[in-house]
Amino acid sequence: MVGASKPASNALFLEDLQVGQRFSSGFHTIDEAQIKAFAAQFDPQPFHLDGEAAKATLFSGLAASGWHTAAITMKLLVESGGGIIGAGGEISWPKPTRPGDVLAVFSEIEEVTPSRSRPDRGMIRVRSETRNQHSEIVQILVANLVVPRRSDTTLARASSTSSDAVVHAAQG
Amino acid sequence: MVGASKPASNALFLEDLQVGQRFSSGFHTIDEAQIKAFAAQFDPQPFHLDGEAAKATLFSGLAASGWHTAAITMKLLVESGGGIIGAGGEISWPKPTRPGDVLAVFSEIEEVTPSRSRPDRGMIRVRSETRNQHSEIVQILVANLVVPRRSDTTLARASSTSSDAVVHAAQG
Repeated sequence: MVGASKPASNALFLEDLQVGQRFSSGFHTIDEAQIKAFAAQFDPQPFHLDGEAAKATLFSGLAASGWHTAAITMKLLVESGGGIIGAGGEISWPKPTRPGDVLAVFSEIEEVTPSRSRPDRGMIRVRSETRNQHSEIVQILVANLVVPRRSDTTLARASSTSSDAVVHAAQG
Repeated sequence: MVGASKPASNALFLEDLQVGQRFSSGFHTIDEAQIKAFAAQFDPQPFHLDGEAAKATLFSGLAASGWHTAAITMKLLVESGGGIIGAGGEISWPKPTRPGDVLAVFSEIEEVTPSRSRPDRGMIRVRSETRNQHSEIVQILVANLVVPRRSDTTLARASSTSSDAVVHAAQG
């Protein structure tokens, strides 16, 4: 339903990255069925499950769970950027995601910090705005990512097959 | 697969809440099939998709996407706490979530702030730790939630059918 399960293979290295660099993703169209399916599994509030019930609420209509927007954002980032090791970050949802929205992610590197203790890696801070087809921001994610340096093959391999839940890697 | 789609109906009001109050959720057991299904949809990295490939990475084995842990956390919060309107927050994943993990969420209210401009609502800041069966923290989420005050029926209704993606509501 939400497409692409092809693993990303284009690893990023700290040497390739600098403050101000920008990336943009492909697109994902979200529909009512996706919104309801995600909500039934993970955010079972009438709001995300029932267009009629949602009308009487603050949202004035069906809206996606913010975590659904976050998950789609991750998909778009992985598809476009390759291995992503996230340790955490700040997230906010300035506007609801609606059925029919076409989402894309626009990212900018805000910080690049080589690790003081581990020469094989560094951290970057990336701001990713998830926008709809009207260029309205539906999510802002400022994430701290672990990025390997080119010298180290172990981490490089880890990055190309990476994850978003490594903190021991982030404690460099 | 991940259970419960019964909408929560027990709304919380600002008057009921105070700093230091604690809540705990029910449990969710995550398995390999769930991890792979979520990853195929939203985080298609070999790490989350393929136990063999994952062995050679930083994770030394299959791990859930952090966004999967976040989504399960939301499910547990909604099931135990009722309507949740989140505007955003900070998230981190100190440890990976593994197949077989039994997750539960332990929350504590850190701040309760009535809105200065809108007498019908307030904000609370809640720290939620998602722990596995070994009491290890796999996720920390410090979230800002919009909470109705008892006087206002519109927001109260909104809360009992609420969402996690309202920012116009959070600008009180």
